[in-house]
Amino acid sequence: MRDSLRELSVELDDRSYPIIIGQGLLGGYDLSPYVRGSQVMIVTNETVAPLYLESARACFPGKQVDVVVLPDGEKFKDWQTLNLIFDRLLENRHSRKTTLVALGGGVVGDMTGFAAASYQRGVPFIQIPTTLLSQVDSSVGGKTGINHPLGKNMIGAFHQPEVVLIDTDSLQTLLPREVSAGLAEVIKYGLIRDTDFLAWLEREMASLIDLDTKALSEAIYRSCACKAEVVAQDEREGGLRAILNLGHTFGHAIETFAGYGNWLHGEAVGTGMMMAADLSLRQGMIGEEGRDRVVRIVGRANLPGHAPVGMTPDDFLRLMAVDKKNVDGSLRLVLLRALGDAIVTEAVDMQKLNATLQVFCGDTSNEEA
Amino acid sequence: MRDSLRELSVELDDRSYPIIIGQGLLGGYDLSPYVRGSQVMIVTNETVAPLYLESARACFPGKQVDVVVLPDGEKFKDWQTLNLIFDRLLENRHSRKTTLVALGGGVVGDMTGFAAASYQRGVPFIQIPTTLLSQVDSSVGGKTGINHPLGKNMIGAFHQPEVVLIDTDSLQTLLPREVSAGLAEVIKYGLIRDTDFLAWLEREMASLIDLDTKALSEAIYRSCACKAEVVAQDEREGGLRAILNLGHTFGHAIETFAGYGNWLHGEAVGTGMMMAADLSLRQGMIGEEGRDRVVRIVGRANLPGHAPVGMTPDDFLRLMAVDKKNVDGSLRLVLLRALGDAIVTEAVDMQKLNATLQVFCGDTSNEEA
Repeated sequence: MRDSLRELSVELDDRSYPIIIGQGLLGGYDLSPYVRGSQVMIVTNETVAPLYLESARACFPGKQVDVVVLPDGEKFKDWQTLNLIFDRLLENRHSRKTTLVALGGGVVGDMTGFAAASYQRGVPFIQIPTTLLSQVDSSVGGKTGINHPLGKNMIGAFHQPEVVLIDTDSLQTLLPREVSAGLAEVIKYGLIRDTDFLAWLEREMASLIDLDTKALSEAIYRSCACKAEVVAQDEREGGLRAILNLGHTFGHAIETFAGYGNWLHGEAVGTGMMMAADLSLRQGMIGEEGRDRVVRIVGRANLPGHAPVGMTPDDFLRLMAVDKKNVDGSLRLVLLRALGDAIVTEAVDMQKLNATLQVFCGDTSNEEA
Repeated sequence: MRDSLRELSVELDDRSYPIIIGQGLLGGYDLSPYVRGSQVMIVTNETVAPLYLESARACFPGKQVDVVVLPDGEKFKDWQTLNLIFDRLLENRHSRKTTLVALGGGVVGDMTGFAAASYQRGVPFIQIPTTLLSQVDSSVGGKTGINHPLGKNMIGAFHQPEVVLIDTDSLQTLLPREVSAGLAEVIKYGLIRDTDFLAWLEREMASLIDLDTKALSEAIYRSCACKAEVVAQDEREGGLRAILNLGHTFGHAIETFAGYGNWLHGEAVGTGMMMAADLSLRQGMIGEEGRDRVVRIVGRANLPGHAPVGMTPDDFLRLMAVDKKNVDGSLRLVLLRALGDAIVTEAVDMQKLNATLQVFCGDTSNEEA
């Protein structure tokens, strides 16, 4: 059962922590060495609780384990839901030595992390991500937060977990749509930093879609390794880390337009990466074969290749302007100088951006190709 | 006007910052060197805005200055009011290079600091405290947060300001009750660390109550110096910093019982310090003359010497149990080993604690003295 256990480390001085990847870890792996006090609060949601709550409890032998079960969905990533965690912590008299545990996908992880960052001005927490997207992205790196009606993840904190425990078996209960959403972030690592990994993904995409455990484990390991490397160099997104946002400015606009939760985050990022590649081509940074390779691999992950029905270029421009990544109102985007080589730039040609937006919004009258 | 300008520093490596104390600073002192971007959001309340908002604006020449005016009072120190700050920041498209400015008392400072800690996962902020209590205590040290119905300051962050600007002239508009509340924290520094300062306060209390500028300036300087020293040694309250909570566990119980805002924080702390001194006597740590000296100096600051009407020892025990400072359910208190020498201890004799509670709740039947 433990043959396949792999471990890597996020190197952040006194905040360094391990990522442990393997099969059958839920229910068996002892996480109590990562708990400093006697109290643990598992935060999960209605969908995940019936599947993995009891197995997660078993990871904390000898501890007082309390539980709060949140409603499921991005639309609940708000203050009201966050407050359910604080209510439970205070009702159960959890001290500042408590440890929070996020058991679920990215929404549960982001909210639990922010609750941990804020409860009594900061307590430790543990990530047990159960979706592909959270395993390869949101559970690693310490970004936590909630949404605001005027923007996604606008309220939050940088708060690193004590450990990330990834049980690849939990992927077997995902909907195909959730697997695809996770693959968007996996592909991203290939596009921004690692053409070898991109080539590997092009070979293994069918196995990944089929939930082949060996292929998934490799994809998760390489994704986490890439993210850990970037985060170790730039924890608070002063520079390099911003390349992890490839496709995200377009994606956030899509998510906001569609209403939180109607498009999965990874779906919006998938389309966003195609758009970033298209704009990179128009700005003379990559060639057509590069753009096409991006569109093809994202498409093979069964991700949408078009903005939501009814969304216009103006909607994009309006919604992209409040994106966090746009300092002082100017538009900053992650583009591809080559496959495997992403840069953050404010040198965005508005005419070319408009052309890209029109293509993906279905109006091809202005398309150059 | 600037003759009396004094400056000291809170030493926290790359998060060190100056505290600037003087007369007439609002309206004249240029704070723009402390603003990294082009945007500033002044957060203040309905009471302070008519008095000092325009003067505060003048401290940021050449910047885009936006304003949000909150309702006044501890009962508004909650998520709903905090969200007014986020709303305004997002409506006015403040980027992650914005700087927040807290203009007001402790509630404005704590909320603005937490908004700055959380907006886009952290932006800088500046403290311009306008009450004595916030000038000598809450504006220095980086504790920020909001209340929860089940406990005060339960949700928050450690987030240090860029600079603290203290204009002693702003004290002239305070109500006598607010001056007294501030003096409670001033007296605290004498009691926990500095008997020379305590003796000075015993001599100068009448001048302080009369708002003598020179005396106030000295009291603020010495209080801030004491706090800066403690915070520099223990930023996140792993040990030493806890002594700053002398009287606060009792005080928080009083505030919660009375309903936030009915007792001023400093009033509750004043009574709480008398209670801590009384318990210190009962536990054989200080003598009667020490206890009496505490009761006398707190009383001379016109602070209440009795728990709220109707509050019982059981109310205290119940409300003290959820205090943040009580790790894992055990009761920890700051007591006085001598005047000028505070310690944090879990060695609380419950019988003696009960005797103290009964005295301050008006039941003297069990009093030993």
